[in-house]
Amino acid sequence: MQELKDRIIKDGQVIGTEIIKVDSFLNHQIDVALVFKIGKELANRFANQGITKILTIEASGIPIACAVAWHMNNLPVIFAKKAAPSTMIDGFYNTEITSFTKRTVSSVMVSKKYLSKEDHVLIVDDFLAHGEAALGLAYLAEQAEAVVSGIGIAIEKEFQGGSEKLRQKCYRVESLAVIKSIQNGHITFK
Amino acid sequence: MQELKDRIIKDGQVIGTEIIKVDSFLNHQIDVALVFKIGKELANRFANQGITKILTIEASGIPIACAVAWHMNNLPVIFAKKAAPSTMIDGFYNTEITSFTKRTVSSVMVSKKYLSKEDHVLIVDDFLAHGEAALGLAYLAEQAEAVVSGIGIAIEKEFQGGSEKLRQKCYRVESLAVIKSIQNGHITFK
Repeated sequence: MQELKDRIIKDGQVIGTEIIKVDSFLNHQIDVALVFKIGKELANRFANQGITKILTIEASGIPIACAVAWHMNNLPVIFAKKAAPSTMIDGFYNTEITSFTKRTVSSVMVSKKYLSKEDHVLIVDDFLAHGEAALGLAYLAEQAEAVVSGIGIAIEKEFQGGSEKLRQKCYRVESLAVIKSIQNGHITFK
Repeated sequence: MQELKDRIIKDGQVIGTEIIKVDSFLNHQIDVALVFKIGKELANRFANQGITKILTIEASGIPIACAVAWHMNNLPVIFAKKAAPSTMIDGFYNTEITSFTKRTVSSVMVSKKYLSKEDHVLIVDDFLAHGEAALGLAYLAEQAEAVVSGIGIAIEKEFQGGSEKLRQKCYRVESLAVIKSIQNGHITFK
């Protein structure tokens, strides 16, 4: 998606050789017009797959997931939670997800009420790096015996191996901006 | 907003006398069509106030904030973060927010880059209970010397005193569904 790549070049901030900071438009301050277009493009790529639910993880996956859902006839969005509120009194599926950026391991959960074996799930997130979040979300869906129909990503850092890991598990991955490398402050797209 | 009240009655789950669980459509699974309408209504109520930015807090305020922004000519949304990612290397405003539902105290932060004294900020959240989150967000905006133009809420539990606290500080509060009491499993709207 050219507009997203252009925006990354214009407003992204490279830190070292592994991190590209896009918090001016994607995951702290949000450009909703851009996010809406990202949602439309991901919805197009996964059209006619019989998808029933969009699954993401709090927090920065949520705007994109909502935009995808909006372009798929208002499909329900579910965001996996990193902490169980005291109101989550029913059963839930859970797993552990490592964040390399935040240097944390989070236990994430989805209420059993909102995923079932009838569901065909599209997993959506802002970033794909090592693949930990996407693998964790897929595992949550599979605990519910739902079908994982695909994984839709805004920005993929291909050199961190996440998409390869996911494709080895036969998941379809679509990323709108695939970064091949970051070197000397310069971003190379695939 | 009648549609929201109807939905709370239909799908909300009362727990005791203080908690109404709406995770089937608002803050775990999300009905994006409803959220879009909530955003439209809040945008209408704060139209022509010269608002420049929408401020919310992760995670469940984000969909509504994006919907409001969409209906206000794509204003930027900023969501306050509960944990500083390793990429947040510049300065930030921060404060502590107590969550009565989650029984936690969170340190929340907003990068100094995204709020300034030129900003007129609309604070948006899914719930208003004791007012802690809204007060914390207002305090973040005020650290930047921004003007807090108002506070837009989907569901207010008036009996927990948050809106009174906020109005005593002269903030304009607009809530689309105001719950006066929850007794014997029955919700009474104002």
